[in-house]
Amino acid sequence: MAMTGVLRPGHVAIRVLDLEEGINHYKNVLGLIETGRDKQGRVYFKTWDERDHNSVIIREADQAGIDFFAFKVADKATLDKLDADLNAYGVKTERIPAGEMLETGERVRFEIPSGHQIELYADKTDVGNGMAYVNPDPWTQDAERGIAPIRLDHCLLYGPDIEKVQDIFVNVLGFYLVEHVVLEDGETDLGIWLSCSTKAHDIAFVRHPEPGKLHHISFLLDSWEKVLRAADIMSMNKVSIDIGPTRHGITRGTTIYAFDPSGNRFETFCGGYQSYPDWKPIKWTWDEVGAGIFYHDRALNERFLSVVS
Amino acid sequence: MAMTGVLRPGHVAIRVLDLEEGINHYKNVLGLIETGRDKQGRVYFKTWDERDHNSVIIREADQAGIDFFAFKVADKATLDKLDADLNAYGVKTERIPAGEMLETGERVRFEIPSGHQIELYADKTDVGNGMAYVNPDPWTQDAERGIAPIRLDHCLLYGPDIEKVQDIFVNVLGFYLVEHVVLEDGETDLGIWLSCSTKAHDIAFVRHPEPGKLHHISFLLDSWEKVLRAADIMSMNKVSIDIGPTRHGITRGTTIYAFDPSGNRFETFCGGYQSYPDWKPIKWTWDEVGAGIFYHDRALNERFLSVVS
Amino acid sequence: MAMTGVLRPGHVAIRVLDLEEGINHYKNVLGLIETGRDKQGRVYFKTWDERDHNSVIIREADQAGIDFFAFKVADKATLDKLDADLNAYGVKTERIPAGEMLETGERVRFEIPSGHQIELYADKTDVGNGMAYVNPDPWTQDAERGIAPIRLDHCLLYGPDIEKVQDIFVNVLGFYLVEHVVLEDGETDLGIWLSCSTKAHDIAFVRHPEPGKLHHISFLLDSWEKVLRAADIMSMNKVSIDIGPTRHGITRGTTIYAFDPSGNRFETFCGGYQSYPDWKPIKWTWDEVGAGIFYHDRALNERFLSVVS
Amino acid sequence: MAMTGVLRPGHVAIRVLDLEEGINHYKNVLGLIETGRDKQGRVYFKTWDERDHNSVIIREADQAGIDFFAFKVADKATLDKLDADLNAYGVKTERIPAGEMLETGERVRFEIPSGHQIELYADKTDVGNGMAYVNPDPWTQDAERGIAPIRLDHCLLYGPDIEKVQDIFVNVLGFYLVEHVVLEDGETDLGIWLSCSTKAHDIAFVRHPEPGKLHHISFLLDSWEKVLRAADIMSMNKVSIDIGPTRHGITRGTTIYAFDPSGNRFETFCGGYQSYPDWKPIKWTWDEVGAGIFYHDRALNERFLSVVS
Repeated sequence: MAMTGVLRPGHVAIRVLDLEEGINHYKNVLGLIETGRDKQGRVYFKTWDERDHNSVIIREADQAGIDFFAFKVADKATLDKLDADLNAYGVKTERIPAGEMLETGERVRFEIPSGHQIELYADKTDVGNGMAYVNPDPWTQDAERGIAPIRLDHCLLYGPDIEKVQDIFVNVLGFYLVEHVVLEDGETDLGIWLSCSTKAHDIAFVRHPEPGKLHHISFLLDSWEKVLRAADIMSMNKVSIDIGPTRHGITRGTTIYAFDPSGNRFETFCGGYQSYPDWKPIKWTWDEVGAGIFYHDRALNERFLSVVS
Repeated sequence: MAMTGVLRPGHVAIRVLDLEEGINHYKNVLGLIETGRDKQGRVYFKTWDERDHNSVIIREADQAGIDFFAFKVADKATLDKLDADLNAYGVKTERIPAGEMLETGERVRFEIPSGHQIELYADKTDVGNGMAYVNPDPWTQDAERGIAPIRLDHCLLYGPDIEKVQDIFVNVLGFYLVEHVVLEDGETDLGIWLSCSTKAHDIAFVRHPEPGKLHHISFLLDSWEKVLRAADIMSMNKVSIDIGPTRHGITRGTTIYAFDPSGNRFETFCGGYQSYPDWKPIKWTWDEVGAGIFYHDRALNERFLSVVS
Repeated sequence: MAMTGVLRPGHVAIRVLDLEEGINHYKNVLGLIETGRDKQGRVYFKTWDERDHNSVIIREADQAGIDFFAFKVADKATLDKLDADLNAYGVKTERIPAGEMLETGERVRFEIPSGHQIELYADKTDVGNGMAYVNPDPWTQDAERGIAPIRLDHCLLYGPDIEKVQDIFVNVLGFYLVEHVVLEDGETDLGIWLSCSTKAHDIAFVRHPEPGKLHHISFLLDSWEKVLRAADIMSMNKVSIDIGPTRHGITRGTTIYAFDPSGNRFETFCGGYQSYPDWKPIKWTWDEVGAGIFYHDRALNERFLSVVS
Repeated sequence: MAMTGVLRPGHVAIRVLDLEEGINHYKNVLGLIETGRDKQGRVYFKTWDERDHNSVIIREADQAGIDFFAFKVADKATLDKLDADLNAYGVKTERIPAGEMLETGERVRFEIPSGHQIELYADKTDVGNGMAYVNPDPWTQDAERGIAPIRLDHCLLYGPDIEKVQDIFVNVLGFYLVEHVVLEDGETDLGIWLSCSTKAHDIAFVRHPEPGKLHHISFLLDSWEKVLRAADIMSMNKVSIDIGPTRHGITRGTTIYAFDPSGNRFETFCGGYQSYPDWKPIKWTWDEVGAGIFYHDRALNERFLSVVS
């Protein structure tokens, strides 16, 4: 968590082209647990090890993509302070009342210069992770149903004006820059990786002319062997794999990129280092960006920069 | 890092009975990098992936054990504020001038009710991790020299009055309780695991009549396969293994406990979950403490509660 | 397989004290697939990846232990030749008609000097491993039900006269010696590890005054991470673990020993090298037998030499 | 080993375009141990865990590719018998005297219909694997120098008339078919995977108009984590990776294909099942050949069928 009281990525709302197909993917292939459906027709999921009621919400729409990405904050006072700080900085915010999302408290929503809707909230019902809070086992059978990630970990968003986005995340919300990729000019950032914790990234952005686009949402696995298992399950289910298993140079994580049936890219990854705000950020130059993104191939595939939802 | 600005465990000072034997252990078996020796005769080490100048300091003495354990804080202002907060709480502090330890800034030292010396500091020279800050590889050859942990991760200390210790760590320094073990009365804590970050523990305490004792210092590895490799290297070097490879119920980490040549216990571990301060702490009852400590054997070995240095 | 046509360990018959408890263990905890029950009340199992109808057979009895251990041979001609060779060597054999065991052809049974019943057979119905013989996936859901070993791999038997046993296995059946442990006299073997293939052991013997005893039957897992998972599942099911996870010096395998509810020891292991008959056998001396058996602890636990069924 | 006495792949002779570059690759990147150079200018290597004097021999030439691939057999009598059997079948053989290759006995060489030179031999000096034959450790420091495979495992050769090749390997040398891929006609084999042991393949062939071509030589690693490490080391050394880390559908192995500096493809792989001659072969149909070769991508890359040396 950041010293400002921003704790972690809390939920993401995704649009899918066919709801039943989407439910099948997120429940049976990715292996999330369905925790509810609301009267708007949204379906709620969490991973087996998350304690809060939901982290992934899908709805049917004509176009795939992301509706909003949210961070949980420490408490109501933090929520109010960050809302005020955003306004003071010049970011307009909107209050969405508690209960608009199932088992979720009041949310503060705002648009960032890259065109994405970001939310903060302080409350979501603790429904447990299926293990007791007294003398728990280390995992449950749900840890082996589908790909079964540990948690929603981060997302990578594509849009313009990422230096303005960075300024808000760093100077208002308390994130810090962990790694960045510079363009051929050696100065302008192509991409930035930001953390509000000791994770190497809680959110990342790549410069892109079209606002509000999703590159991928990412789910954490707990070993490289689980990355292999995820790739096997993808193939068994004819999931379209973008790339992987491989390693990122950036963050050192091991990874697979693949697509849900609507074309939303998702990542299942493991590893990478843990970072701290006193660390000097790592820079990737344009000639080595291939190794930065896909360390083994040392080259971007063309989909990485062009295919978003 | 905690919202108070406490970042992470930064250094530990250990006493060894024979300096050359100790250097051989920490350098060649554990695989740390020696970074300096001072005029007091102390020898400084860091892990291959740590960027700050030192994390483990050893000196020769008649009795093994721990001299002090320190946390790095965000900056000088944080250091001063925490110093003032400690005093306001009633904890006496001492200022140790910059340079008393190699490449390390001013330290604030204080004794906690368990009888241990704890330090805070804001500055330690960044000497890098052997990889460039521009286009780095994910690891270096030093990652395979000896056991080669990633970082000094935490310690477990034994002493009295651990509820008073908890109060200082939580209410002054901003830590939170992650797990605890209660005694047969169902109320009194035998042990507490505390975090100032999203790590499942940055420091832990077990109730013990004698003050100031060390149970173990702990080093992070990045996979269960590296835990096996560590056990192999221990056996090749005739290191005395206490227990493991096994899993902890508490924190879910996979682990080996072993002893340095002077009898200081150390742990090389991997995994475990990442925690957040909004999480309800996990409780272990007395009848299940065996599974909590050593999940596979479901029983404590007698050394766990009695052998400390 | 051996040049004589002995292919591999094919089935083992085990006695359990309570049949329902035994079925629960072998089916739900070990994760074998039940493939049939016969009119004698025996229950048949196979692993998820074995193709032949059965490999583990249990029956209820007043005393735990092993009834017989069998090797599959290449074909009927091989069976007849080995039967004749055994007789020529002086080993009495008995023919058990096809069908006495479910889906299993005629068996040649003989007692070896250690007091164990060994069988050879050429036919057992191929019931498949749940994956097609055309375009198969690499694994099925049964690969994650319980501990889910890949195959029955070998057994370790305790009894007298193991040099006579070795002579039969080597000179009649075509096995070769891979490793051995010598007693304090530096000459007499305490234990021998024998292979009829490129596996480091297909059967092993330890010298013991009482004939016909079982030390353990062993099941193969495909990674060290699966060894950890096996230990976790054992603890979740309160299976009594003898030792592990750890590594053997002998064969280099990584391992857990545990007990079924009747006290029959079983092993779930991974790894170890592959050997060839032109290799010089590895010898372990009495002073290093601890490291040979349990490489990390470098000491036998007292159960290893005394507890058998 | 086969029932005929063919033990295992023993050595491969490879042509490289620049000897020093080749030595650097095989010694420092792949991590083999150089064991000698002969007066013809050939350089000999073995893996850290092989006991025989050499397994990979390179020489400088104008064109990359393979000179010959050899199998060790049980003894001189086996060598003579197989030589006679080959001649009886109609395969011409040539005797190469002992000592023509360093520390290697007499070889029987013959050309197979695919245009490759195959050799059999019975003797190669045991130089040990760096660990004692008495009370050995499980591995040495050489196991972590470069990619450090365990052994030369198999090769995949491209050429015509692979059904004639199969007939010789099966009916004269005692191999058996483990898997095969059929062309669109559903009958003609595109590729065949053959074993003389319990390995899923000791040699494989793909139908190709040009005779005598090498697709890859393959080296065994002992875990999926070592496959990741191999890919990292390749990237650190700017080795050109063809594909991987990924999984094969055929044999289930996990794998990387890459190229030595001369363009000879090599594989570093792990896992896959162990097979037996009584097993029904697995068939891959033309429409699923992509999943058979690269299970995760479910598609061949164009290099797989066209780039050989």
